[in-house]
Amino acid sequence: MDFVWKNGGVCAPKGFKASGIHCGIRKNKTKKDLALIMSDNLCSAAAVYTTNKVYGAPITVTREHLKNGMAQAVVCNSGNANTCNADGVQKANMMADLVSKQTGIPASDVIVASTGVIGQVLPIEPIADGMAQLANELNYNGSDDAATAIMTTDTVKKEFALSFELGGKQVTIGSIAKGSGMIHPNMATLLCFVTTDANVSPAMLDKALKEVVVDTLNMVSIDGDTSTNDMLTVMANGLAGNDQIVCEDESYNIFKNALNQVLTKVSKAIAKDGEGATKLMECVVKNAESKQLARNIAKSVITSSLLKSAVFASDANWGRILCAIGYAQGEFDVSKIDVDITSSKGKVTVCKKGAGVDFDEDVATNVLDNDEFTIVVDMHSGDFDATAWGCDLTYDYVKINADYRT
Amino acid sequence: MDFVWKNGGVCAPKGFKASGIHCGIRKNKTKKDLALIMSDNLCSAAAVYTTNKVYGAPITVTREHLKNGMAQAVVCNSGNANTCNADGVQKANMMADLVSKQTGIPASDVIVASTGVIGQVLPIEPIADGMAQLANELNYNGSDDAATAIMTTDTVKKEFALSFELGGKQVTIGSIAKGSGMIHPNMATLLCFVTTDANVSPAMLDKALKEVVVDTLNMVSIDGDTSTNDMLTVMANGLAGNDQIVCEDESYNIFKNALNQVLTKVSKAIAKDGEGATKLMECVVKNAESKQLARNIAKSVITSSLLKSAVFASDANWGRILCAIGYAQGEFDVSKIDVDITSSKGKVTVCKKGAGVDFDEDVATNVLDNDEFTIVVDMHSGDFDATAWGCDLTYDYVKINADYRT
Repeated sequence: MDFVWKNGGVCAPKGFKASGIHCGIRKNKTKKDLALIMSDNLCSAAAVYTTNKVYGAPITVTREHLKNGMAQAVVCNSGNANTCNADGVQKANMMADLVSKQTGIPASDVIVASTGVIGQVLPIEPIADGMAQLANELNYNGSDDAATAIMTTDTVKKEFALSFELGGKQVTIGSIAKGSGMIHPNMATLLCFVTTDANVSPAMLDKALKEVVVDTLNMVSIDGDTSTNDMLTVMANGLAGNDQIVCEDESYNIFKNALNQVLTKVSKAIAKDGEGATKLMECVVKNAESKQLARNIAKSVITSSLLKSAVFASDANWGRILCAIGYAQGEFDVSKIDVDITSSKGKVTVCKKGAGVDFDEDVATNVLDNDEFTIVVDMHSGDFDATAWGCDLTYDYVKINADYRT
Repeated sequence: MDFVWKNGGVCAPKGFKASGIHCGIRKNKTKKDLALIMSDNLCSAAAVYTTNKVYGAPITVTREHLKNGMAQAVVCNSGNANTCNADGVQKANMMADLVSKQTGIPASDVIVASTGVIGQVLPIEPIADGMAQLANELNYNGSDDAATAIMTTDTVKKEFALSFELGGKQVTIGSIAKGSGMIHPNMATLLCFVTTDANVSPAMLDKALKEVVVDTLNMVSIDGDTSTNDMLTVMANGLAGNDQIVCEDESYNIFKNALNQVLTKVSKAIAKDGEGATKLMECVVKNAESKQLARNIAKSVITSSLLKSAVFASDANWGRILCAIGYAQGEFDVSKIDVDITSSKGKVTVCKKGAGVDFDEDVATNVLDNDEFTIVVDMHSGDFDATAWGCDLTYDYVKINADYRT
């Protein structure tokens, strides 16, 4: 099976247009703040949301709109989360209505999303004023503009697309995402919009999304804070012309594999662009007794503030890795654990059978002094693996979040 | 009932001596690194330990020594955690043996503790060489030396003592503690040694300790990292002469109340001296449906990295408070929640019924620009309260932990 990475983001699959403009929610006129993604036809659609009990008004509206498993467009603003506002749901509905008025598609087929400061009333006027232009500028090369418009503290745009063959047809999955702080997805995720021209039934699309998210976006943490506005949506318009996927057959597995690859790329890109981060920290847990235990341990390691601070200084303070393994949920035998640290600059073994081994500190520092590195934890207790992604904790994380509203 | 705070730390109760010296585990000769606390007679004793599955060798040894509910001394080194070392238990036993040899008390009545870097072999020679001096210097005013010797990145010594009357006798509880990073106690705690001349049976001492710790030291978090070496011990030598507490009578409640007050002081002192911290953040949750829910929410708020960064800048970014409430474990009605922020500089209401209210940002900044402040979360749903303590997240937290081993 050939998988080929492509440019074009959410517009890489057939039949998807996008646009992004500055409408005025943000004061800075050079920063786009409103995005639209639209399919030429109605799509199968699925989504997962934050599990935070305080959640954004757009989630209430989107959940309602996706009850029938169908959607045709996504509208998303940055600069304001439209969360903890008494008039939040009303404003989120108005956003869908404005899209409907300009494009002619029913408001109930619009996915609504917002990201930014929590607890400030969303000004609807700039969105109302800008919607004609936003709809006007929709085009088959608009992914870049949409991806830019949903960014907040992100320093890097996240756009990925992957093509592969399905039942003799070329199928593409595209995506854009944002996320840099308040990132600790839990059975849900940050903002990520996926498009595909695959022909997939709503039920199978929902199933694939839920199976893939637990090993991809739910394995990312920047700061342990689960956002109020996390949302991951996928729209499949069927224009690739493959036979519709309606059960867990080989085509389903190929599609799920491709979706997993796209969301893994998104996950790594988000972790690497964590607020203030200078490097991507990957933790691979191998040979655990269960999948859930492997996930718990991998996520515990990449979430430790102490370890995150140490790797910022390229300090192989491996005792903090063991400490974070130790407070992960689940039962396991510490005395079987080996730990290696690897990067493109080399490899160093820091722990064997739960106890330290002599290693050259200079070699270890060199391995860590890289913009990506991997901590490999071998449990020697079973057959299950998991991977999680995080980043270092730096002065700039504090700076960004001390200054965020000012 | 009069409770009177006193000086003297662990030596404030009758019959307790202490000492602290530099023996050479640390390179810096001006920093003490070995402490001893000893009672004139055998004590009832109880302890709680870290729940981290990777735990220090001293915990293995102390757990064994406290099986009979009795102890007479505490020995503790700083500079090395004696954790994740193949010879750790052997070294911890040697520490108890060295105390026994110099003082004549059985090794099995010695509580052993270590704190410092994880995963480096503990050098026993400096401890062996220094033990004669350490025992020699034991004296009834030695709490200060012992408290200094157990400090790691702490900037402030933690010593508290409280006197009260019990069955016509004056009783005192004394304590020393250390803890500044890797602080997120979980059904256990950091290093804290409590002494008392109260006469309490081992079973009642254990019960009181376990009841008090869940509302005091377990409600502190500096960085979400549960240490491998957390240990809280209490020794009661009975020299106050009160009738022994053997059941849950009024004397038990008075003693428990006093222990709660001492450990609350310790908890606040540890949070305020969190690594890099400039201020103490207290969260009081009121009128929750259950005690556990109140605890979960209070701890979730003071643990949020985003909120901790915002308050460092005295930014009343209250949306982050709601966000952290929202991902706390448990079910509750967000639309009933009110949030106030108070300090000695005033009070500001930021949220009513789950939605934002207009407030003066300058007033809010002034309230937060203080070395202590309180976030009051009123759930309006029940009768249960809880309080948790944390601190702000600053550049210095990152600096301390990026440099810790160098």
